[in-house]
Amino acid sequence: MAAPRFMILLSTFILCICHGVVALWPMPRSLQTGSTYVTLASDFRIEIQGAANPPQDLIDAVSRSKERLRSDKLQRLIVGRGSSDRSRLASAPALAKLTLNLTPSVSSPASIMQEITKDIAGRSESYSLTVPNSNTGTAVISSNSTLGLFRGLTTFEQLFYDDGQGVVYTYQAPIQITNDSPAFPYRGFMLDTARNFFAVSDIKRTLDAMSMVKMSQFHWHIVDSQSFPLTVPGFPELAQKGAYSEGQIYSTEDIRSIVQYAGERGIDVLVEIDTPGHTAIISTSHPEHIACAQATPWSNFANEPPAGQLRLANAATTNFTVSVLSAVANTLPSKLFGTGGDELNTNCYAQDAQTQADLKSTGRTLEQALNVFTQATHGALRKLGKTPVVWEEMALEHTVTLGKDTVVMVWISSQNAAAVAAKGFRVVHAPSDYFYLDCGGGEWIGNNPTGNSWCDPFKGWQKAYTFNPLASLSSSQTSLVLGGQQLLWTEQSSPQNLDNIVWPRAAVSAEIFWTGAKYPDGTARNVNNALPRIHDLRYRMVQRGINAIALQPEWCALRNGQCGS
Amino acid sequence: MAAPRFMILLSTFILCICHGVVALWPMPRSLQTGSTYVTLASDFRIEIQGAANPPQDLIDAVSRSKERLRSDKLQRLIVGRGSSDRSRLASAPALAKLTLNLTPSVSSPASIMQEITKDIAGRSESYSLTVPNSNTGTAVISSNSTLGLFRGLTTFEQLFYDDGQGVVYTYQAPIQITNDSPAFPYRGFMLDTARNFFAVSDIKRTLDAMSMVKMSQFHWHIVDSQSFPLTVPGFPELAQKGAYSEGQIYSTEDIRSIVQYAGERGIDVLVEIDTPGHTAIISTSHPEHIACAQATPWSNFANEPPAGQLRLANAATTNFTVSVLSAVANTLPSKLFGTGGDELNTNCYAQDAQTQADLKSTGRTLEQALNVFTQATHGALRKLGKTPVVWEEMALEHTVTLGKDTVVMVWISSQNAAAVAAKGFRVVHAPSDYFYLDCGGGEWIGNNPTGNSWCDPFKGWQKAYTFNPLASLSSSQTSLVLGGQQLLWTEQSSPQNLDNIVWPRAAVSAEIFWTGAKYPDGTARNVNNALPRIHDLRYRMVQRGINAIALQPEWCALRNGQCGS
Repeated sequence: MAAPRFMILLSTFILCICHGVVALWPMPRSLQTGSTYVTLASDFRIEIQGAANPPQDLIDAVSRSKERLRSDKLQRLIVGRGSSDRSRLASAPALAKLTLNLTPSVSSPASIMQEITKDIAGRSESYSLTVPNSNTGTAVISSNSTLGLFRGLTTFEQLFYDDGQGVVYTYQAPIQITNDSPAFPYRGFMLDTARNFFAVSDIKRTLDAMSMVKMSQFHWHIVDSQSFPLTVPGFPELAQKGAYSEGQIYSTEDIRSIVQYAGERGIDVLVEIDTPGHTAIISTSHPEHIACAQATPWSNFANEPPAGQLRLANAATTNFTVSVLSAVANTLPSKLFGTGGDELNTNCYAQDAQTQADLKSTGRTLEQALNVFTQATHGALRKLGKTPVVWEEMALEHTVTLGKDTVVMVWISSQNAAAVAAKGFRVVHAPSDYFYLDCGGGEWIGNNPTGNSWCDPFKGWQKAYTFNPLASLSSSQTSLVLGGQQLLWTEQSSPQNLDNIVWPRAAVSAEIFWTGAKYPDGTARNVNNALPRIHDLRYRMVQRGINAIALQPEWCALRNGQCGS
Repeated sequence: MAAPRFMILLSTFILCICHGVVALWPMPRSLQTGSTYVTLASDFRIEIQGAANPPQDLIDAVSRSKERLRSDKLQRLIVGRGSSDRSRLASAPALAKLTLNLTPSVSSPASIMQEITKDIAGRSESYSLTVPNSNTGTAVISSNSTLGLFRGLTTFEQLFYDDGQGVVYTYQAPIQITNDSPAFPYRGFMLDTARNFFAVSDIKRTLDAMSMVKMSQFHWHIVDSQSFPLTVPGFPELAQKGAYSEGQIYSTEDIRSIVQYAGERGIDVLVEIDTPGHTAIISTSHPEHIACAQATPWSNFANEPPAGQLRLANAATTNFTVSVLSAVANTLPSKLFGTGGDELNTNCYAQDAQTQADLKSTGRTLEQALNVFTQATHGALRKLGKTPVVWEEMALEHTVTLGKDTVVMVWISSQNAAAVAAKGFRVVHAPSDYFYLDCGGGEWIGNNPTGNSWCDPFKGWQKAYTFNPLASLSSSQTSLVLGGQQLLWTEQSSPQNLDNIVWPRAAVSAEIFWTGAKYPDGTARNVNNALPRIHDLRYRMVQRGINAIALQPEWCALRNGQCGS
């Protein structure tokens, strides 16, 4: 019985659980790796099985993966880089094929985009993946959805390196991932395109990076008090008078193109039209709808300049808002739509004669009027099949009746998630104390030499990585957590620093909400495990033209474990 | 006598002192502007007078200016941008010519590069500039040096805007600047290319930006403990074994090319080879010269990983260091050369058997040995005509005899400048509490989720702008202040974020040390005056391909004064 025992030992050796080494991000929830070097054969191909008529976006994704396996040219982050591995590659087995296996088979399956734009509770992102350690084997990714196959492809790409001379290889075959699926369905990133404008190409590049880490939601905070860069069907004047310039407007075609680009990459686009606050710029085209427009000093009327809020107590303004939100939502496939609701300034309304007259004539308090306004906007969105998404104040600070399906984004403090859950609402974590990417950049109010950013200090990746999505929640409340996201408010950001203020930091929440609290071997998530992998991710992003920031001196990136405290 | 009185009034009106409006950076020390719109004629030309044989770098600078006047395409930062001015341009006078007038005339004057690489006390950067408000006039820049003419050209470029349709104009003619010259000769920026590597193109782009704001010194902290990306003539092994990779090395030709590029743009290059600390990487090629190489835990032996310092008490190591410094200095035209001297770790030497044996055999204390080492390196540099530049510890914390001409960079605290001046040394301000550009980016030690950057918070442009170079100095000491610089240490920076972490912030010190304490009208430097001008500079940088960060929402940039507290 010596041979079988030997075989078992050998198998154990080869399929060791080496998750601390392999540079996947997010870490799959199941993973076994070996230590065999396997190259990609020169005629390496990817085939789709189980779908006679695969959707075009899956076919395109396969093409991109094939291209990137060659073009990434990422060398391993070790001293000597790719050259350290060359001697192992000459005799390494070559992998000839990757099969994407849709199971059970479907003749004409739903596209990636169709899968990701389903209701967030009903998406299937699970996949399994195997890479053999022999010439004769075939790598396989299997899933019951095209979206799952796509997630598996994303994992597959991260397994491979270049030796500096064009040989593409993994050093950890055999690799086995079984039923990897996200701990939470909402893994997002929010971009504010109103404080400063971002071109379509900037957004698509951001979507590329999001897709690399299996993010599922792009939260697009598209307009705000400073500018209105969105063409709204039926209301062209909003952008014509509210955008920074003619060249800084998202056309209807731009929106469609971005939503399509995102969907093909497994990302649903949640557009937010923040109301009734954060709307000052609407006064340039519709002064009749805005209270305290550009009132001074701004600090009496708003959290930042310029002041101005929708006249929420006014029936005409409410109708206008309903029409605008509906016109935008109607063009979008996502089931989620953001209506904002943050930082409402009551003094603005107290000082606004029109609002006071409206309140008097209807006999309502401001809170009652806000409720009527919210019922109108949310009701209209629900008629279009949308689920409203709001900032936490709407659930915690106002006496507004929200539908129980409402998604609430917790931003003021991570500690407020418990209160939102206690009210039975679904939670998206967006805490300023962990996830705000803009913090720490100094005071942007122009004439203040002593101020710091309001949410100082900078939220480093390590701090963000310690976030616990289930902290202070009872076990019965955990199902209310949809996930979370890091956010970029752009008072001090623009295309010039977009990539490096966001990446790789925003990948932190992608892992928190995919991998969950523990790695495949049962150890708790920790920064020591994450560091070499987030370095690897950052260097791969740079290879793909995403200007992700360096987290440490390259000396440290090449020497795992030598730059800790 | 009515007519002359009217003429005087008109003249006063036209030549109002409107320095708060014109978007020059740095603000000239003399400035009068009018309110006449003047366009550039379609056949606008720039001629050099007073030099039969102008140097090639001045001819090239003229070509670049002519090109940029058309290619900047910067529209004014006002609501409506360039379109707001179009109606004023149709009937505006057109400027046909700019004359650069070297006075007194010299047949073959020194080049810009020759002027800027002179001893820092003997450079001439002064110029005068006039722009007429009529079709018939000629704009003139006059100076007694090609360097002064170049500074004037830089000013001239900043006077002009594009209307969005290719019409280039100024709106503030006539313009008169008389004998504008810098308050301080050293106006610098420091880049660390050792923690992370920067390509030659990144450095040249940085030099372009520096030149836009009339900076005079590029302080190149080229090597450090983490990497040695410099090819040293006679010591190729230092880079071969000490660079991050073959592709991350500055060749001798790279150095020459960068120094030339800088010189042609009015910038002297001060190269620093930090010694005896910050040299760990030399152990990869010369382990015999490095004490406590990569000793652990690093925090016992160095301020950051990896540990390792030159064996300063060893004669062979001293000779090696002298040879390396001399080999580098010998290739450089600058009169300044940096030898470092910061953050010496005494425990490293206490634990190093070789150093202890060297001290014992020579009968010296560590401080005495440091003095011998410093005399050797500084003496060798002086023989090559170089003035040593050191960090403040060499003047304040060690008992080293420094030549009175030594330039001391004050970095630990702005308050230490007084102590350096009290010892009679010349001061370059590089205070971490005002000018460190890397502060506020979070802790980079990998496994520390609660730490912030050591010099938190972020040093915003407003804070930096309040720096007073003469604080705590007696009037007799003020002449010791050569100037100052902002600095980028690159533990958390790389080419991906270079432009936006540096610009436009680093322009703050360029103005502090050119303009001095007061604007031309006698008012003290202040952030309200600076804000619209630094916005303008930032937007012009972006137009030139420098990815400078946005300081505020564009709404604020277009509405001067509406985003203050």
